[in-house]
Formats: sequence, C-alpha cells, structure tokens
Amino acid sequence: MKRGFGSDNHSGISPEILKAIADANVDHALAYGDDEWCARTEALFREHFGPQAKVYFVFNGTGANVLNIDAMCRSHEAVVCAETAHINVDECGAPQRVVGCRLLTVDTPDGKLTPDLVKTRLHGFGFEHHSQPRAISITQSTELGTLYTLDEVRALADLAHSYNMYLHMDGARLANAAVALGCSFKEMTTDLGVDCLSFGGTKNGMLMGESVVILNPALDVDLKYRRKQMTQLCSKMRFVAAQFEAYLSCSSPKLGEVAAQSADGGVCQPLWRRNAEHSNRMAQLLASYLEPLSSHLKIMYPVQVNSVFVQLPSDVWHALQKEYFFYDWDESANIVRWMCSFDTTESDIQGFVSSLKKLL
Amino acid sequence: MKRGFGSDNHSGISPEILKAIADANVDHALAYGDDEWCARTEALFREHFGPQAKVYFVFNGTGANVLNIDAMCRSHEAVVCAETAHINVDECGAPQRVVGCRLLTVDTPDGKLTPDLVKTRLHGFGFEHHSQPRAISITQSTELGTLYTLDEVRALADLAHSYNMYLHMDGARLANAAVALGCSFKEMTTDLGVDCLSFGGTKNGMLMGESVVILNPALDVDLKYRRKQMTQLCSKMRFVAAQFEAYLSCSSPKLGEVAAQSADGGVCQPLWRRNAEHSNRMAQLLASYLEPLSSHLKIMYPVQVNSVFVQLPSDVWHALQKEYFFYDWDESANIVRWMCSFDTTESDIQGFVSSLKKLL
Amino acid sequence: MKRGFGSDNHSGISPEILKAIADANVDHALAYGDDEWCARTEALFREHFGPQAKVYFVFNGTGANVLNIDAMCRSHEAVVCAETAHINVDECGAPQRVVGCRLLTVDTPDGKLTPDLVKTRLHGFGFEHHSQPRAISITQSTELGTLYTLDEVRALADLAHSYNMYLHMDGARLANAAVALGCSFKEMTTDLGVDCLSFGGTKNGMLMGESVVILNPALDVDLKYRRKQMTQLCSKMRFVAAQFEAYLSCSSPKLGEVAAQSADGGVCQPLWRRNAEHSNRMAQLLASYLEPLSSHLKIMYPVQVNSVFVQLPSDVWHALQKEYFFYDWDESANIVRWMCSFDTTESDIQGFVSSLKKLL
Amino acid sequence: MKRGFGSDNHSGISPEILKAIADANVDHALAYGDDEWCARTEALFREHFGPQAKVYFVFNGTGANVLNIDAMCRSHEAVVCAETAHINVDECGAPQRVVGCRLLTVDTPDGKLTPDLVKTRLHGFGFEHHSQPRAISITQSTELGTLYTLDEVRALADLAHSYNMYLHMDGARLANAAVALGCSFKEMTTDLGVDCLSFGGTKNGMLMGESVVILNPALDVDLKYRRKQMTQLCSKMRFVAAQFEAYLSCSSPKLGEVAAQSADGGVCQPLWRRNAEHSNRMAQLLASYLEPLSSHLKIMYPVQVNSVFVQLPSDVWHALQKEYFFYDWDESANIVRWMCSFDTTESDIQGFVSSLKKLL
Repeated sequence: MKRGFGSDNHSGISPEILKAIADANVDHALAYGDDEWCARTEALFREHFGPQAKVYFVFNGTGANVLNIDAMCRSHEAVVCAETAHINVDECGAPQRVVGCRLLTVDTPDGKLTPDLVKTRLHGFGFEHHSQPRAISITQSTELGTLYTLDEVRALADLAHSYNMYLHMDGARLANAAVALGCSFKEMTTDLGVDCLSFGGTKNGMLMGESVVILNPALDVDLKYRRKQMTQLCSKMRFVAAQFEAYLSCSSPKLGEVAAQSADGGVCQPLWRRNAEHSNRMAQLLASYLEPLSSHLKIMYPVQVNSVFVQLPSDVWHALQKEYFFYDWDESANIVRWMCSFDTTESDIQGFVSSLKKLL
Repeated sequence: MKRGFGSDNHSGISPEILKAIADANVDHALAYGDDEWCARTEALFREHFGPQAKVYFVFNGTGANVLNIDAMCRSHEAVVCAETAHINVDECGAPQRVVGCRLLTVDTPDGKLTPDLVKTRLHGFGFEHHSQPRAISITQSTELGTLYTLDEVRALADLAHSYNMYLHMDGARLANAAVALGCSFKEMTTDLGVDCLSFGGTKNGMLMGESVVILNPALDVDLKYRRKQMTQLCSKMRFVAAQFEAYLSCSSPKLGEVAAQSADGGVCQPLWRRNAEHSNRMAQLLASYLEPLSSHLKIMYPVQVNSVFVQLPSDVWHALQKEYFFYDWDESANIVRWMCSFDTTESDIQGFVSSLKKLL
Repeated sequence: MKRGFGSDNHSGISPEILKAIADANVDHALAYGDDEWCARTEALFREHFGPQAKVYFVFNGTGANVLNIDAMCRSHEAVVCAETAHINVDECGAPQRVVGCRLLTVDTPDGKLTPDLVKTRLHGFGFEHHSQPRAISITQSTELGTLYTLDEVRALADLAHSYNMYLHMDGARLANAAVALGCSFKEMTTDLGVDCLSFGGTKNGMLMGESVVILNPALDVDLKYRRKQMTQLCSKMRFVAAQFEAYLSCSSPKLGEVAAQSADGGVCQPLWRRNAEHSNRMAQLLASYLEPLSSHLKIMYPVQVNSVFVQLPSDVWHALQKEYFFYDWDESANIVRWMCSFDTTESDIQGFVSSLKKLL
Repeated sequence: MKRGFGSDNHSGISPEILKAIADANVDHALAYGDDEWCARTEALFREHFGPQAKVYFVFNGTGANVLNIDAMCRSHEAVVCAETAHINVDECGAPQRVVGCRLLTVDTPDGKLTPDLVKTRLHGFGFEHHSQPRAISITQSTELGTLYTLDEVRALADLAHSYNMYLHMDGARLANAAVALGCSFKEMTTDLGVDCLSFGGTKNGMLMGESVVILNPALDVDLKYRRKQMTQLCSKMRFVAAQFEAYLSCSSPKLGEVAAQSADGGVCQPLWRRNAEHSNRMAQLLASYLEPLSSHLKIMYPVQVNSVFVQLPSDVWHALQKEYFFYDWDESANIVRWMCSFDTTESDIQGFVSSLKKLL
C-alpha cells in the first residue's frame, strides 16, 4: 500500500517493540498473566499511574473500553458520552451487547464533553423506567483530535463523583495527549480523579496491546473473570506485557543510539513519548503547510495531537485519495481526516502537500 | 520459570513466526484485514480447506469458539458438547454471556462425543420451553488428548445434518490431530461435513492468532459485524495474517536449514506440521518412558497427540511439581496432565522422567 | 387515590373485560396459548390486520416492543427512533439488555420521525465498525400525543423498505390513533407497509395484555422460542386472549345496554373504539376548557388523541398536584402532561379545570 | 377441552381471586406498584416471611426465577441446580440470555439436590477460566413432585453460606409444599436460611401473578431497575397485588360460606392453603386408586404434593390420552405425569381411574 494518512494503526511496529517481543521469547512462561514480564510491567504501570493502579491487559481498544464500562456499570445503568465517542459510533454496539447498558450521547462542537453538556443527561435518578446514569466517558485525546485540559478533566471527574458516578477515560491515544499537555500520565488521570482508563499502545507503535487501568480500587471487582468471559484474556500474555514494558520503560533506549545522551540531557525518553512527540509534530508540520492554503480549505479543529481534520472540495480530496490513502470523515460536509503516525516522515508530509497543491 | 509440562501455551514463539512478523513490518497497511497479507493468507486457507472456506482472524481460542457458536445458534438454541469441552468448562461462560445460548453437555469416557451420546440430548424440538438443539461441538484433538477418527467425525456430521443442525470443530490443536491422523486439514474437516472450525495457531508456535473458518457458506452471515461487536476485531491484522502465512505455507523453510531437502524427499513440511509432529513425538517419548513404571502410575487415555494424562500418588506429583510446572487435572482422582509443546526437548523429557523416578 | 390525569394506566379495567375473564374461567384449558380462546382471538387479529397477521400475546408494552425489535434486528443492527420514543427513554434499556442492539435516536419537534430525520442516521452500511441500521420504530400515537397521518407512515415504510429495513409501530395507544384517524387498524398498519406492531390493550381498559403483531411474514421466525426466553410467555394465556376478544370483537356489546342501537346505526362499536373515542373526547374537552386560559398557559402540541401537554407556571402546577395526580413532563421547561383515560368523566374534567382556574 | 391432568396451570381462576380483582377495580391507582393494594400486600408478605422480606411482583415463574438469579449472580458466576430444574430445562435458556450466567447441573435420583451432589460442582474458585459457583437453586416442591424436608433445605443453605454462596428456592408450588410439610412459609424459607424465593400463585388458583421474595437484604440491590429492564414490570400492578392479598390473607373467606367456622376451629384458612390442601389430597386419592394396579404400572416417586409420576405401557397411556389430556414426561421410559389442581374433583379422579382400568 501507498504510505498514507489513513490512521495511526496503518503504521507498523516500532523496532523497540519487536525487539522486546523477541527478547521475551525464551523458555517457558505461565500463560494468562502469571509471568515475570507481567509482574514487572504491572509495577511499571503503578509507577506511571500511582500505587493503587491495577492493570488488565487486553487485545484491543474495544475490549478495553467494554471491560471498563463493565467495571463501572450494570446493564440498567448508563454511560454519558459524546455522540462522536468511539464507544458510541465505532464499536458496532459492543457496549450494548456485552454489557447491555445504554449510552446517553450528547452532541458536542468538538468531541469534548463539558459539565453543562453532561448535566443535560443527568436526570431520572431513582426512576425505574430510566437507565440510571452511572458513568461519564471521555476520550483523551478525542476522536476529533482535540484535547481536554487538566482542569476540564478535573471538572468532569468532580461532577461525576458528586452524582456518585465514575469517570472513564478512553486513552487509545493517551500518549499523544500527554505529550501535548506536557504532563505525566498520572497527572492527567489519577491526580484528576479519573476512575478508570483504557490505555492504548497499538496506535503508537505496538504490535497489539491495550490495557484497562483501574485507578479507583472500588472498581476492581471480579474483572479477571469478566475479562475472560468477554473473550479478552490473552494466553501468551508475556508478549503483551513485554511490549508495554518496552513502551513505558526508561530503560528502553532508542535502538541504534546511545541511550544516555537523550536530547533533553538525560531525562527519560521512553518509547511512548518519542513516538507520540513525533506523530504530534508531523501533524503540526502538516497543519503549517496547510495554513497558507486557507482560501482553498479549512482546518476544522485545533491541531492538538496527531490528526488534522480538513474541509475541502470533494473533487480535490477524491483526486488526492488516488495518491494517498485517507478516510473521508463526513462526506456530506466534505471533511476528511489526515492522521500522522510514529513512522510518518517529513518527506511523507511534503509529498502529500505537494500533491494537494497541484490539485487545488 | 523452569521449563515444564504445563501447557503448550507456556512455550514461546517459533522463530519462523517472529521472522514473518518482522518481514510484515514495512510501510503502511490498511487496518482490520484489508491488506495484502490477509488476502494472501485467506487464499492459503482456501488451499487448505477448500475453495468455499472463509476465514475470520480473531485473537484467541475463546473468541474463535464464541464467534463460531454465534454463527450457528441464536440465543434460544443450544450446542451439544462433551462435559469436558473447553467451551463448557474453560471459557468462564463466554458462550452464555456473548451468545446467550445453552450448552447441552454429555458425560463421556474420553472427551469424545458419539452419535449415541449426542442423541440423548436431541429432544424437545418444536417445544418452546426447551432450548432447541442446533449444533454439535467437538474438539479435535480433545481436551483429554484423544482423537476422533475421520469416520467418527463424519458420523457426527451426518447426525447433525439429519437434524438440521451444524457440526463445529474446536481445532485449537488441529495441527496435532492432523499429524496424528496423517491427513490434510481438508480431509479431516470439510470433506467430512464439518460446518465451521476454530483453527488455532497459538498453541503450536504462533505469538497470538486464532481463526474462525466457515466451511458451510450458509453460516457466513454478518460475521464481520459480529466479530467486531464481540470485541474480536484486530486492527493491525496483517501481523496475525503474516503469522498464519508462515504457519501454513510451504514456502516457509525451517530457518537455518536447506528447505528443499526435507526428510520426506521434498514434500512440503510447513511449520504447523513440523511443530505438531515434534510435540506429538515428545508425548510419545514421555509415554514410552512411563510405560515401565506402570506399577506406580497409570496412563489414563491413549496418548494420541501431545499430552499425557497420568494417575499417580498425590505425594509424588506434589513433589514433582516443585521441580517442574504442570497442572493437576483432577485433584480428587490424582490425575495430572503433562503436555508437550513445539519446543519441548528430549532432554526436557529425560530430566523430568529422571526426577519422577527418584520420587517413586 | 384521588382521581387524576396521571396516565391511562392509572385507570382500572373495563367491565366488559372483567366479564370476559370471568366467562373464560371454566374447566381446563391448555396453557401457553394452545386453547380455544387464543384460536378465536388470533382469528380476530387476522380480521383486523389481514390474513397474514400473526399475533403473539405478551404481558406488557416493553415486552411487546422488545420482542418486535428482536424479530427485526440482531445485536449488531440498530433501530432508528425518536429521542422521545418509549423504547429509548422509558424501558430502562430493555432493548440493549435483551436484544443487545443500538438505538439511533433523532431529536424531533413533536415526537414524530420524518424521512429526512431518519436519513440523518442511515449511513455506515457495510462498515463493520458501525451498527447497521435495520429498523425504524415509530409510536402511533406518539409519546407527545401527536399523530402520524397515513401518508406519513407510508413514507416511512417506503423509506425503510428501500434500505432493506423494517418499520415497527409501537401501538400502545393504537386504538386512540385509529379513532383520531377514522380508519381501521389494517388501513393504518398493514396497508401502509408496517412490518410489525406492538398492539396494546392495557392503557385502553384491559387488565393486562399486550401483543406483538407480525404483519410481514418474513419476520415470523422462531418468535415463540424467543418470547419464552425473554420471559414473556404467559401460562394461563386464555385470560389474555379472552380480554383481547372482548376488546376487538363486535359481539361485545356495552354491558347493560342494547348493543344493536349503536350511535352510527348498527355499525360495530367494539370496546376498543368506545373506550378510545371516550378518552380522546375527554382530552378535547379538557383542551377546549384550556383555550380561554391561553394567557396563563400554553398547549404544547396539537391535541390529537387522549393527552394534553401544557406549559404553565411551576407554582400553579405544583399546587394543582396537591389535588390531582399528574406527572411533570419536563420540569425544567414547566411542561406537564394531562392524560385522559377510558373512565375519565366530564365531571373529572370540570373539577380539574375549576381547581386550575382558582390557582391561576 | 376435556378436563384433564396435564398441569395445575390448566385450571382456571379461584373465585376468590376473581372477586379480589373486581374489588380492586375502583377509581384510579398509581401504576407500577405505588398503590395501596401493593402496600397492603407487601405487608402481608412481611407477615408471612419475616419483617426483612422484600417482594417484587412479576408476571410469571420464569420472570421470577430469572430476576432472582440476577439478584444473586453476575454473568461470570454460576448456579448449581438439578438437571431437572425448571430453570435448566423449561425456560428455553432464559437465565443464559437474560443473566448470561452458567447453570451447573447435577443428575439426581428424585429431583432433589443434596450437599454431596452440590459439592461435586464446587471447585475452580478463583480460577478465572471457570464460572464461579455463586448460588444453589432448589425447587420446593420439585419438578418431580418430591419434597425437601426442612433439615434438607437447612443443610443446603448452610453449605451455600459456607462457600459465600446463596440459596434460591423456586417455589412455584410452595403452597403445596407448605401444606405437605405442615409448616408456615417462614419456617420453610427464611428460618432455614433461604436467601431468595420465587413465590408462585398462578399454579394454585391465581389468574396471573408470581413474585420474587428477597429474604436476605444483601440481595436487594437495584432490583426495581433490573425487573423493569428484563420486561417484568407490570403497569396496573394493583391487580397482581390484589390477587396475592386474597391468596395470602386470612380475611379472605371461602366465597359463599361462613368464614369464621373453618374446619379446624377458627384457625386461618387462607386461599393458598385451601387450594393446595385440595390438590395435594386429590393426588393422594389418585395414588390410592393406583396402588392396587401395581402389577400394571409403577408410581415413580413418593406422592408428596399434587402430582403422580407413573410408568405404564405406552399403548395404555396413548389410549388414555384420547380421553384425558396429560403429558408424557419421559417417552423413552414410558413415564407420564398426572397432575391435580385446585379444581380437580373426586369425580374427575374416579372417571380417570375408571378409564385407565378399562385400558389395562
């Protein structure tokens, strides 16, 4: 396939991840998580998210989201989320089928919930005819490439808790958000009152591996059974753990370089950060090339992480799709999504913009 | 961990599989199965199972079994299976939760269903109070290490079809069975009337990858949606397909050897066969060492594939477990399971038997 | 309890219904529907809805709606409905739990879908990440007391069929709608292309009894099992059938009167019509009393069936609730619902309006 | 239909029940349980089962059982029950679909679980691949017409609690069991440690009405929502409550008689007891007529409540079915079930036995 801007899961595997898998491929290990790689990596998650964090490795983002919803809600309860949330539009109804609960969706201008928007759905408590609101789910960064500030997340957590509800964060792209916010994972989740998290690796350079991170211990009930029952328990789990270890650990130098001499003077530059910084920077670069073209196209949302949503004439983007793969996001509104990944190169961007300019 | 005889999923990854993953790690590929690796590997499945075979890659064996059950049954229908079937005892109720159907279990002497045993569950047709029998599920090779002959499978398929039911085969260890039966995959499935198959790779040297193989096209309805909704759709699917390609393809020589000169004079010796032949042979070796010890222990079932079930005094196996990991299978009956894998060595067996002899 | 305007299910049982139950209370009858009352009543449904109509009696409206959705959709599919639909807001997520599917809701001005509103949800066909739109569900008359014209229903049926989708009608108050439209049940359902119907009796004078009426035979698959499995199979079903027989039959004269001399010169005036005409007329009467008060209150929607939605100052309706029970519909907007039932009297209305006037 | 011995739900409605419904048919009442009949009847349940008892009215026995299972178990948990349990064989998989859990069935000689039989299923605790045993369910009286003694129930309750499990009793025929045991409802449930109960009325003279009685307050969590969501919430609930009030209350004299002069000198003889005593007595009468015929037929189980299971030549019972309706219970073993109900008469029995004798 032509290199493209379709999705960050169109990219492959970071070399460091492949090496970690190969390194873990020794002797025998107990299956289903009772191995040394899992033990070490679970400790790493506690370093990143706080000592109470409990991680459950799963296969994919839908599995992570559904297990988190299952931890928060029973079937008669409901999750408030943005209309554009992945759990709402991109999981083919997995929460409905597997958990059996309702999603209470809210239209948003930019993919972001606010306390005022959420409150429009907080009624009917105690009324048995209505699904009981029990959780708020936000995506950080959002499906529209936008970002919640730390204060915005905290406000939603406070709102949730004031209603005896929980706050879930879909962090399929949490690394991109962390880089954009310039903070640690803990500062953007645990410290703000996030109760549970879907923490992704696949979109940022892993082969295959996502995780449920329970930050509120009250939610850590029977999840090992429920992960198994919903078909998300991996047998050779050491190979998922080893990926996350390479992803999160400071001891994972960039292959082929001298690790100690990182650009910022020795500060830990783990893989998740390097990859996310790169893909975010590529999106910025792309946006910077697009700005002079503003008479022909419109950047729809602030470019805060690794995607750029652009409105432009349909004949242009249809022609451009013959050279580069990308998705039309909203065909009726002529909006497309261009997404950068950890392996997008500056030359990819330049070639793409050059083709685009010829078509304008 | 000490090397052991716990399970074939305690082993790691075949080097050929790792190489295939690395080789597929180039450029961009569409996610979710629309890539060249998937296309080539789907063609390979058609070579192995017949032109009508349709494959859906999934993450794990439970996912494969549940998607197959979902293809055969609606929630008011039922699957007849052995009491010892993986779908019954080892999936934490996944079929019940995800499909919502009943399993009609039958006690068996050796993990194998027979037409007579199945018929004890075939009643109540048309009676709305009873779940309607709609499928038979067998495991080949079984959870007890036993094997169905081709005629036995055909008889069950014929029985199923005479009742307008389907026959599912859980082939988590189909490779071991194929080697033991000395036949092709097609001869042991499609040609006998098997309607759908869970075809495993993980237990025989893959990193992570199983598949649903629909052999009866009537069952191929909406499965892409249902795989997604039950959380079993992989994003970077090329890396699952690439593993299966290396597993199934004749063009995958044993690394470091001259491929053309295989022992049987040039006949294709793909990875699945090499690995399964080896683990089966190791189980035979182990059994041959155990036979002289028959005054101290009892081999419970014919050793037909890669596991040996043994009854021996509890103090002996408890002591042995301090040196080697393995599972007690039926603690009350003092039965343990010793399982060999593709990477079990003759020296593993010899060391194990030597330790055992000291304890007897 | 004070007589009130809370709901048409706050009323009791029509005397004719009680008599029918008593009349059916003779000897023994097979349970679960295989009795003479069911046979006769099923024939009556065919008279009312056409020869292909197949009726399944159930306990309540939620049961009827969920069984209909189950007939139309599998879990990966979706139902387009109004945000205000009973299936969306008043069934505590029953469709999600029991069927596992998504509802795709649309905001409407008056509780009514239109083809244009529905079309906003008809996309993503064939895309496995999205629940597949498979049904449209409308409520006739709507939860806001409004009415679809026959042409409007036909347009939605045509739209549905053009997308290979089905049209479901929630007819919990179908009798009220039929009276308002001046047509037969068949003319407002089968003849327009409605595929399946929830046909209610409880809100219009029955003790307890609703029904699923399958108008499109393609949907009549395995429903007897699925009704049972979702807990909606009644054992002494003759007593549900007998109610519907009294409700639908022309041979059910008004108790204590001479049946033949009905107002329209001998035309059949079955119970469903008498009751619905009465409750509709009471709502008209109430509305006629409210019109002169338009400086103090606002009737929100056309009064087409048996309910009146009114916006008025909160202190007024709070005070009025001390005398008469009724529900606040939208507390934030000061909208209340006043509903008339088959046993509402003119004097009930006059007393209520008199109290209201004192408070204004 | 001919009068017969098919089931106790082939009988009709006790006149006292019909009268109670008619008496409740006055004015308006809040729907869904918030009415005076429900309040009074809930108090009656507390009198019968102890002050902590909480009742939820439902439509049918399957609904009652499934709501109870839902109160005890999440989907990854399991219920131990007899193979012959109604929840296992006669609800078309409702527990699997609605709760999503497994049933762990045990073969029994007489439909009764024992601690030893249950213990064969109590393993795998903490092992995530196995559904976790969380409840024991027994039927009192059983589906085979047998009876648990109080001590037997207590032993099962103690066993359950020692494993942190719950004991559920399916009391669709609890009245028959209470009469046979000569004890109060409380003595046979609450006092023995039963945690929750399905308490039936329909099979013993009610029109339609069953109930979930929560005896262990720890189980009373969110059930009002879950009842609604599983479609078991009745709107005009006063008419279910009124039936139970007439059924349970001492103030419900036998219609047409002088209430105070009951046969046992003034002791309360509520309807449930009168009806159950009668149907039990009719079964005894039938059995007494059958005993002399023991060379031609065999009574399979002790006749303890209102049914008689008989093995006799197939040509005989086939011929007898032309005159009287009854079910073959196990066609392959030539066992039929003859069930008496509250309205079975001595002359019914005599006629039946007379016909039988002619056929022998």
